[in-house]
This record gives sequence, C-alpha cells and structure tokens, in this order.
Amino acid sequence: MRNIKLVLEYDGTNYAGWQRQKNALSIQQVVEEALYKLTGEKITVIGAGRTDSGVHARGQVANFFTASRIPADRFSFALNSLLPYDIRVLESQEVPLEFHARYWAKAKQYRYSICARTHAPAIGRNYYYHVPDVLDVEAMNAAAQYIIGTHDFKAFQSAGSSVKNTVRTIYQARWIWEPPCYLYFDIKGNGFLYNMVRILVGTFIEIGRHRLQESDMKRILELGDRDKAGPTAPAHGLCLEKVYY
Amino acid sequence: MRNIKLVLEYDGTNYAGWQRQKNALSIQQVVEEALYKLTGEKITVIGAGRTDSGVHARGQVANFFTASRIPADRFSFALNSLLPYDIRVLESQEVPLEFHARYWAKAKQYRYSICARTHAPAIGRNYYYHVPDVLDVEAMNAAAQYIIGTHDFKAFQSAGSSVKNTVRTIYQARWIWEPPCYLYFDIKGNGFLYNMVRILVGTFIEIGRHRLQESDMKRILELGDRDKAGPTAPAHGLCLEKVYY
Repeated sequence: MRNIKLVLEYDGTNYAGWQRQKNALSIQQVVEEALYKLTGEKITVIGAGRTDSGVHARGQVANFFTASRIPADRFSFALNSLLPYDIRVLESQEVPLEFHARYWAKAKQYRYSICARTHAPAIGRNYYYHVPDVLDVEAMNAAAQYIIGTHDFKAFQSAGSSVKNTVRTIYQARWIWEPPCYLYFDIKGNGFLYNMVRILVGTFIEIGRHRLQESDMKRILELGDRDKAGPTAPAHGLCLEKVYY
Repeated sequence: MRNIKLVLEYDGTNYAGWQRQKNALSIQQVVEEALYKLTGEKITVIGAGRTDSGVHARGQVANFFTASRIPADRFSFALNSLLPYDIRVLESQEVPLEFHARYWAKAKQYRYSICARTHAPAIGRNYYYHVPDVLDVEAMNAAAQYIIGTHDFKAFQSAGSSVKNTVRTIYQARWIWEPPCYLYFDIKGNGFLYNMVRILVGTFIEIGRHRLQESDMKRILELGDRDKAGPTAPAHGLCLEKVYY
C-alpha cells in the first residue's frame, strides 16, 4: 500500500462542496470515481478541509491509499485526463503512510473576494461576492487586527455546530484593495470553525459600511454571541488557498 | 432623439463575439433585445470594438439612439434587470448626438491573461490561456519594447483582412508576472488590426519559450510577414479593458 498526497484546484460552482453526500455531486465523489476508473480500486479520498457548496480551492490537499503501481507523480496527469475541467490535480506525490490530510494540517489559508461597486460583475461572477456599497477598507483592516492571535471564536460559528473547543489561532488577517473595485481578505489560521471565515467577512462588511464600528469586532469576540456578528457572507466568494503541514 | 453611451462588462464565453450575426448569439443582439423589451424600439447598438467569439470585456463602450424618456443613468439598472448575468451595463449616460462609439475612440486598452504552469487552471479557466511551459518574462518584456511607438503591424494581422492602412501606434505594452503562475499582457494603442493582440501574444509566447529571440519581434515587424510571427493565441485569454475618447 502507498499513501498518495494530492494538491487540488477546483471551481466549486457546480458542486455540493468537498464532502461526499447523497443526492448531490461532491468534489470528493468525482475524484474517487476518477481514481476508480484509473486503478479499479474503491478508494476513499481524505480532504484537508470540507469546503462548502460553492466554495472554491486553489490548494486543497487530499490523500488516499492505493495498491496501484502508477508512479506517484503521474497521478496528477492521469487524473486530469479523467476529471472534468473544473477540477484539476496540481501535484501528486507519495507520502509516509502516517500522513493524514486533515489531522496533519497545521494551518490553512483562505481568501475571500468581493466586487464592491454599483453593478454586479459579469467576469468572475462565480468568484466574487457583489457588495453594491462603498466599503471603508481602512476600518476593515483596523478591525482585522482584533482577530489576530488566539481567541475564542464562538461568535463566528454557525448555529448547530457541535464543536466543543472554539478557540483558534489566527496568524494573518488582512484586507487588500485592488482598484477599481476589488477587495480581498486573506486569512491564515491553525483551524477554522464552521462558516467562520464567511461570518467574519460578513461582520467586516458591516464595519466597512459603518453599520458596525471597528471596536465591535473586539466586543463581539468577547461576548461570544453569534447574533451580534454580521451575516454569513455567501460561499462563492471563498477560496481555500493553501494547507500547511 | 437622445444618444446614450453605455460601458459594458461581459464574459464572452457563451457568445459568438460582439457583432450581430446569423445563426449565433452575439452580445450586440442580446443588448438590442433587452433595449427592445425596455423601450419598444428596434435599436441598433454601436460598439467601440468588435470583440471576437470568446473574448471578454471589462470596458466595452457602445452607444444607441432612443426616443424613450428613461433617465440616462437609469438605463444601466433597467438593462441589468433584463440582461443575462454574463453581461452587465456598468454605466449609462447621455452624450452629444455626434458621439459614435467606434469612430470617436482614440485608444483602446486590452489585457491578455496566461496561466503558465504544468496543469490547466480550474478557477478562471475561461479567462486564462493555459501554457504548460516556463516562460521568460524578462525576454518577453524586452521584446515588448520593440512594438511601442508607431509601426506597420502588417505581420500581426490575420490573413483575409482587407484593411489597407496597417500602421498603428502602441502607447503601452508590458508583461506583468503574478506569482505563482499568472502572466498578464497590458497593451494600449490607437487601434488594432484583426487578431493583432492575439498574434502579438502568440509571438511573445514563442519568445518566452526561447523558440524566438527578443530581436525577432523587431525583425518580424520590419519584414511584415504574418508567417514569421507566432500563432494566434486563443480568444478566451483576451479582454477589452477600456476605450479612451
């Protein structure tokens, strides 16, 4: 048996997220079916993060076990010949049998993309959340300082989640303004609660609109109350950029 | 009668280009049909540039005449409520009756986008030309210097074009490298021959691969021979960014 690690890029628009599920097509299922065609084995692919429906990835990492004798670095080419164009394997390599894409992940980097102008984007419309308002990027960046470090992010977790430890460490959080109307939020942390990036972004947008103040980010963190945070920003603006091991 | 100027963004993926034609859906036709629904008038929309099938625009300009009493700045909102999501009107304003989107254009800016890595892009796959090679961006930029200024671009025109004067002035031409694998070519000129940007890009790519030398750009310009230039790069990497008046 060999353990193969993949780095994947995908456009999540037409999928019900990473994780396999009934009655909806997931990226995991499509990759597993391609592996079945390739190897004849019924393989389970372990992803580093369960991206939601509509969420994209430029650097999702996954691993799987195989008895196949295909050279590790050829899996990327062989899989790409079988996969649809909205899923690409960028790298494939053999890793130690102990490697586990999810448990071994030390940190993840996400990017959230916004198009802030009156009219919605036509180009890249599946990759940008359209906000038809002027956003105060300086205020958003000032608020971003409050989430850097180790905090209890209970307020930034979707209701119904059963995770007990809601403490996470954020290494980097910053907004980048690209004229004429594009905004990018880059965040790197040791882990993320369910919908955490999207609720953070929804809160930052309220700050950018001056409906909340910069210091409200600190207050909401301390209160730990989901209802005080902003709405969950839509999935299609989010992209899993990189997984660190 | 009033003359209304529009600025349009569109994703050209699903269209047979800007110009109306039989048996294929053009952006011009879709905009004219939306105007008919809105005003009841059979309106001809004049575009600044006839983008080819698959070519995108972030700043196409068009104008049309109407007897409708809709306030000029409301056309953008009204049209966007009728247009498909891959065509957006970013601005609408009244202009003098003499204004003509094509004849009045003083300069145009285009961007060509490349994804230069082993595997094709999944994200933005309709906006990037995939080149699975390492490209020498410095050599490409050195060659770009040769096309700046006023030159006869006969070598960079698709066969079958009937334009007599093939002299054009290029104000700006530069390649931008964005890690890890994206390349952008920004070019601004007073006018462009048929497929000129795409043939220039195809030639630059050959230089980036070291199949042609930097100085070959100068030689090809002087020879005026289409056969010496590189292949026509595919349409989907090209975007009309801005029209200057």
